[in-house]
Amino acid sequence: MKYVYSFKEGNKDMKNILGGKGANLAEMTNLNLPVPPGFTITTEACHNYYENNGSLKKEIEEEILEHIKNLEIETGKTFGTGPKPLLISVRSGAPVSMPGMMDTILNLGMNNDVVESLIKQTNNPRFVYDSYRRLIMMYADVVKGYDRNVFESHLEEYKKTKNVIKDLELNADDLKKITLDYLNLYEKLNKSPFPADPTTQIIEAISSVFRSWNNDRAIYYRKMNQISDHLGTAVNVQTMVYGNIGETSGTGVAFTRNPSTGEKKLYGEFLMNAQGEDVVAGTRTPQPIETLNNINSKIYQQFLSYSAILENHYKDMQDMEFTIEEGKLYMLQTRNGKRTPTAALKIAVDMVHEGLITKTDALLRLNPLDLQNVLHSRFKSHDKMPIAKGLAASPGVAVGKVYFNAQDVIEAKKNNIKAILVRNETSPEDIEGMHHAEGILTCRGGMTSHAAVVARGMGVCCVSGCETIKINEITKEISFPNHKLLKEGETISIDGSTGNIYEGTLEQEENLENNNLQEFLSWTDEIETIKVKANADTEQDALTAKMLGAKGIGLCRTEHMFFSSNRIFAFRKMILSNNMQERVSFLNELLPYQREDFYKLFKASYPNSVVIRYLDPPLHEFLPKEKNEKQLLASTLNISLEDLENRIINLQEINPMMGHRGCRLAITYPEIAIMQTKAIIEACILLLKENISIVPEIMIPLTGDQKEFEFVKKIVDDTAKKIMKDHNVEIRYQVGTMIELPRACVMADKIANSAEFFSFGTNDLTQMTYGFSRDDSNKFLPEYLKEKLLKQDPFKTIDQEGVGSLMKVAISIAKNTRPDISLGVCGEHAGDPQSIKFFKEIGLDYVSCSPYRIPVAKLAAAQAAIKSGKQD
Amino acid sequence: MKYVYSFKEGNKDMKNILGGKGANLAEMTNLNLPVPPGFTITTEACHNYYENNGSLKKEIEEEILEHIKNLEIETGKTFGTGPKPLLISVRSGAPVSMPGMMDTILNLGMNNDVVESLIKQTNNPRFVYDSYRRLIMMYADVVKGYDRNVFESHLEEYKKTKNVIKDLELNADDLKKITLDYLNLYEKLNKSPFPADPTTQIIEAISSVFRSWNNDRAIYYRKMNQISDHLGTAVNVQTMVYGNIGETSGTGVAFTRNPSTGEKKLYGEFLMNAQGEDVVAGTRTPQPIETLNNINSKIYQQFLSYSAILENHYKDMQDMEFTIEEGKLYMLQTRNGKRTPTAALKIAVDMVHEGLITKTDALLRLNPLDLQNVLHSRFKSHDKMPIAKGLAASPGVAVGKVYFNAQDVIEAKKNNIKAILVRNETSPEDIEGMHHAEGILTCRGGMTSHAAVVARGMGVCCVSGCETIKINEITKEISFPNHKLLKEGETISIDGSTGNIYEGTLEQEENLENNNLQEFLSWTDEIETIKVKANADTEQDALTAKMLGAKGIGLCRTEHMFFSSNRIFAFRKMILSNNMQERVSFLNELLPYQREDFYKLFKASYPNSVVIRYLDPPLHEFLPKEKNEKQLLASTLNISLEDLENRIINLQEINPMMGHRGCRLAITYPEIAIMQTKAIIEACILLLKENISIVPEIMIPLTGDQKEFEFVKKIVDDTAKKIMKDHNVEIRYQVGTMIELPRACVMADKIANSAEFFSFGTNDLTQMTYGFSRDDSNKFLPEYLKEKLLKQDPFKTIDQEGVGSLMKVAISIAKNTRPDISLGVCGEHAGDPQSIKFFKEIGLDYVSCSPYRIPVAKLAAAQAAIKSGKQD
Repeated sequence: MKYVYSFKEGNKDMKNILGGKGANLAEMTNLNLPVPPGFTITTEACHNYYENNGSLKKEIEEEILEHIKNLEIETGKTFGTGPKPLLISVRSGAPVSMPGMMDTILNLGMNNDVVESLIKQTNNPRFVYDSYRRLIMMYADVVKGYDRNVFESHLEEYKKTKNVIKDLELNADDLKKITLDYLNLYEKLNKSPFPADPTTQIIEAISSVFRSWNNDRAIYYRKMNQISDHLGTAVNVQTMVYGNIGETSGTGVAFTRNPSTGEKKLYGEFLMNAQGEDVVAGTRTPQPIETLNNINSKIYQQFLSYSAILENHYKDMQDMEFTIEEGKLYMLQTRNGKRTPTAALKIAVDMVHEGLITKTDALLRLNPLDLQNVLHSRFKSHDKMPIAKGLAASPGVAVGKVYFNAQDVIEAKKNNIKAILVRNETSPEDIEGMHHAEGILTCRGGMTSHAAVVARGMGVCCVSGCETIKINEITKEISFPNHKLLKEGETISIDGSTGNIYEGTLEQEENLENNNLQEFLSWTDEIETIKVKANADTEQDALTAKMLGAKGIGLCRTEHMFFSSNRIFAFRKMILSNNMQERVSFLNELLPYQREDFYKLFKASYPNSVVIRYLDPPLHEFLPKEKNEKQLLASTLNISLEDLENRIINLQEINPMMGHRGCRLAITYPEIAIMQTKAIIEACILLLKENISIVPEIMIPLTGDQKEFEFVKKIVDDTAKKIMKDHNVEIRYQVGTMIELPRACVMADKIANSAEFFSFGTNDLTQMTYGFSRDDSNKFLPEYLKEKLLKQDPFKTIDQEGVGSLMKVAISIAKNTRPDISLGVCGEHAGDPQSIKFFKEIGLDYVSCSPYRIPVAKLAAAQAAIKSGKQD
Repeated sequence: MKYVYSFKEGNKDMKNILGGKGANLAEMTNLNLPVPPGFTITTEACHNYYENNGSLKKEIEEEILEHIKNLEIETGKTFGTGPKPLLISVRSGAPVSMPGMMDTILNLGMNNDVVESLIKQTNNPRFVYDSYRRLIMMYADVVKGYDRNVFESHLEEYKKTKNVIKDLELNADDLKKITLDYLNLYEKLNKSPFPADPTTQIIEAISSVFRSWNNDRAIYYRKMNQISDHLGTAVNVQTMVYGNIGETSGTGVAFTRNPSTGEKKLYGEFLMNAQGEDVVAGTRTPQPIETLNNINSKIYQQFLSYSAILENHYKDMQDMEFTIEEGKLYMLQTRNGKRTPTAALKIAVDMVHEGLITKTDALLRLNPLDLQNVLHSRFKSHDKMPIAKGLAASPGVAVGKVYFNAQDVIEAKKNNIKAILVRNETSPEDIEGMHHAEGILTCRGGMTSHAAVVARGMGVCCVSGCETIKINEITKEISFPNHKLLKEGETISIDGSTGNIYEGTLEQEENLENNNLQEFLSWTDEIETIKVKANADTEQDALTAKMLGAKGIGLCRTEHMFFSSNRIFAFRKMILSNNMQERVSFLNELLPYQREDFYKLFKASYPNSVVIRYLDPPLHEFLPKEKNEKQLLASTLNISLEDLENRIINLQEINPMMGHRGCRLAITYPEIAIMQTKAIIEACILLLKENISIVPEIMIPLTGDQKEFEFVKKIVDDTAKKIMKDHNVEIRYQVGTMIELPRACVMADKIANSAEFFSFGTNDLTQMTYGFSRDDSNKFLPEYLKEKLLKQDPFKTIDQEGVGSLMKVAISIAKNTRPDISLGVCGEHAGDPQSIKFFKEIGLDYVSCSPYRIPVAKLAAAQAAIKSGKQD
């Protein structure tokens, strides 16, 4: 078994064993880009490390030392001794990018001898001691697990005594002194001195990187990003090059395109006389990449050409790291860059236009869920002045109460408080809090700072580098330039698309216009797959849905039409009727409203079809809860408040989800179904006069038996027949049902005898199949997820094994009865990519989801089709 | 097609076409018993009548008249004319007995000519006019649908003017006058005279009997007794014989054994100088059959011998009607007699002892549901004096409020008021009210009166013929001999086994001792079939169950153990704990109670096994609802009432049936499962010291996934292991689960990997499969049953198509994983005969029902086995 690969031996397709960083370093080496020589220890060595109870096997150690020897030969330097000492870095690199999650150690190979040689060689003792003291601190932290702050605060103390602020103000003697202090500090903590032996250094460093695979940060990151714990990490060992050797040296990061907007223009930043960590950590604010042209035009042009080579080679936007050592450019990393959903969309569409990738490539490149974020929320137009402005680090807007550490954000979230995480700068320890925040605000760090990168990846809005504000994480206060002081729990509004920060609450709105999105979604229509319809109850919903490419309305919830203030009153009177006569008269008040609603809805979605679900929820959901509303209703009904309250109590149920609802309402009160049928057919007749011919699809909810369905269908047919006769006109319509009870699944063949279409109500079906009340399951579902008794929340992603197998039974037996039956889904799962893939596999014709989920659903459906085609 | 059969042509096996009465008349004729000659018009003629839009086809009419001619030849009489006129009766007779439900007309063939001839022939004008006026009234009522009371009240008026009380006090002239008045009354109502043509009379009479098949009474009776509407009725036409011709004539009814107790002794009553209607209607109180021996010993002995012949021939207790016409005995009917459940049991057991029938015959002869009534309730011993005493007409006791007509009883029942129906005498119009009454009390009519017969058939307690009380149905009052006056809504207690009536409420108790039952049930054990276990939560339950022959305990609901006053307090504190430490300490308070409960339960049911279900219901069910109880609890917990109420609100759920319950409790609060395991294992250890070795079967409720089950099983195993180690002892136990979620059914193969047994919780499974909340379904289920959207209440009888098919899936896939898995049912359906038959068919090993249902379940199981064996 080969455990170590020289960069010359690998390539970009070996990510599984070399990790992403290692594979790309090898690829760049083979593209003849200037990569400092090095090698990669494989993920298999990592597995072996864990199997071997957390220690490196002798044979792997030997293979590593072999490769060190090769490095010595290639560079003409020697490891651990002079005259030209070889210094190396050790960096983690997992098969899936986990930025900042695991550990890095630089400058390995340093000891007192080497210091002497290096000073001789470079004539730069300040640089040499700076490198040494950094090694000691990193080694103490990463290999030995001592608190880095012990070293950091010593440095700060020293600076205070010297009365300086920046590290750069310290001279060689200062750093030599600090290095000696660090060595003492290390020995004090460790009860034995810092290892002078370079082999010990490197083997310990590699082991500690393997160990870091299982640190808390890394585990949480994997859980959040659904990355398998079994991948393991590779370790890259590379010859050091130095950006901190002097003013002709420097380091930077850059993207081939703008990761926030997708614009096709090099985007990045750099710092002269700095090491890589300084740029990413956000401790110094770097310069935009373009200004490098002024400092060293040759290097800048060279970098532009490498950047073009890499993007063309990888056919994707690249995120690169580079170092300039005394006027020579080195490439240290390239990878497919993280980007905002908006950027991802623009880049994919642009690359199709540029001929770099195909439409299919483009469709597969986006995560369907990200499309939802393309339609970023924004503030409604307003005339408030911002109280500060930072960098527009991750687009979208957020409103929330300010909290000053990750833990407080998590607590706030538990109490359903929307929180903005406010930090001087964020670090990997903060990611759980960042995940739970509405938005993130920092005063340090640029567009590629930790806060900015992570927020963009999460699709969380972020304003970074807002240097005009002062954040006190101890007293939990922000001071603004206008002397305004905001304390923990006070509300701000932040705009990650502009960098603006506002006091108090601004109103948000969705943004529906995006030309790239329209074009991109039109490509999904070229692929034959499960159709996407919309859940829409209003004309406005129907128009939005149409604009986003919905193929009709798969669910109109008629009860939603009664919620507006002028109707709820008549609806409540209907519910509280004492007898059928009363009920009919109140239903007659509602008829014109409902007819007009249907008229508008049908017209808005024409020529696409509309599925109308008859009244579904338990009636008492509509009743007033406030005393004055009750009083008002009682007086209109001409009854006492007590009488009203008694009637309300009579309507209450112990388990309303399994109570008097769905088609049970139409069976006990046929007059409701009669009114709804009238409204639909009369709306169709009105439209027919405008030459708009509608075939409404009437859907009976909560059917569990063929007889139930037929009972209601007869009401529909009788009513429709009468109206059509009265108007001397013929309206075609269909009557189908929701399949949302386990019994409906096993009786589907019988029900399909008379039902013309099915729509699976997977919300209720999940509730009944699991016996989980969606309203109450928060009492135990978190525990289930934590204990991994459930892989995922079954109300978000369909339970294929349980609920899914009932659906399969229903589909198979229903098709025996009615081979051409139309089959859809209108539960919450209809907008979930993983579920959509399953729905396609089991042969459904369409999914129907909320309008804003349509882009997600369309892309998920297209991807499912493309992938299943590939597998064929 | 032959539509008419002479009695000589039929036999007892032709009930389907001749009806029960007709088939038995034919059988008796062929046994050479003295049956007045006649013939039967078949049920096929009835179908033909309805198919022919409610009229008799010419060919059937002709066939009838043909048989009338034959009758004339056989009897030497002539129909509709003298000198020896033939008079006939027309009686309904359906394939299934529906006593009193349909119509009868006697004395057909009468007209003015015939009157003259009959007077000449009999020299008894009083009898002749009495017969004629009866014909007119019956014909007007049955054929024409006029109110019988018009005639009855005319008779009453006439008697008033004559100042007489009884009909018998009227002489021939009176009756002649009444006859003429009746003819006039008829003509006035009918606008045309009473038909003198005997052919018209008979054809109309037969048609009206066919019509009566669909009168309201008959339809309700069929619905109540689950008799098909499609059977139709036959019609019997028979030569009249007269019990009312004088003092040497008479009529009576008798059973070959006592229908109330089963005693082997002729049991019946008769009236001299009376027609059949007089005995059954209860308008005159008849004499016990034995006294016939004094009046006419020859006839009595003759009747005894016929009675013996019939019982031996039918091998069942017979219910016979007879008439003595001027000293000659005629048999008018025989049929298998209706009997109380107690009598049915005794008769079946006795007949096995007598060698008349086999054990298998006996087992098939009882309706399983009736066995429940064998254990009649009785009053606990008391020293109250009865305020009146009537006939012990139908055993059992009842306590309720008095209501004076059927409608008021039905209304009371709707309001959950227990009602006693109090009537002077009951009539077929009352049966719906009788069905809803707890008990029935009448002041007229004997042991075979309508009230007595129907009550015994329904298993409703009845005291009849309580002549010392006066019932005023108008003012709704009963006057008792002690001058006590009881009004509507006041409470009485009646004992149908003694005839005693008490004021106010007496305490009831179940009666568990019945030797016949023990013997009878022991026969079920000789048949290999599904086992019957008991649901039992206490030592007392376990003993009762054992006595009734349960094969162990199939369900011990541990939560029931916490309801007693000393435990509920600790239990409530546990529920309201703020954290695990508190919860554990309150659970420790409960541990000794629960351990002792298990100790007693295991011991009581030893050597049979016990299945223990872990805590199942939502916790808030146990919380106090009354303010003072809350106050008490709050002060013990040392918290404010407000805090307590908040905690209670936090525990409330919107749909508790699908909420935080079942194994979800053990998952979120493992400490509960730990305590319950401790209690079980420690109880077993205590018993082991007494040399009683128990293998408890631990049942996890509401499992929906293998992982859930395994999570709880691990808690059980870990806890058990620790205790066994501490005590240095080995206790065997099993861990299984309830299958009560649709998801559990489809995942049963996976769950069976680790679950050692399954028990189907068909209550919850029915709720989830239908989406019917049992607590709320009364809002729509009645409508479903009324509209026949459901054949039966799915909470009473298992839904084979829906719920049953999920069970079949579960069984089939579970057996793939674990072929020898033990499978039971512990829902309400486990005591329902129809459901038990199904459970046997799908391969379950046992049912577990409440102790009092065990006899029912055992017999149902035995019958299912016998019948399936027969079908093989």
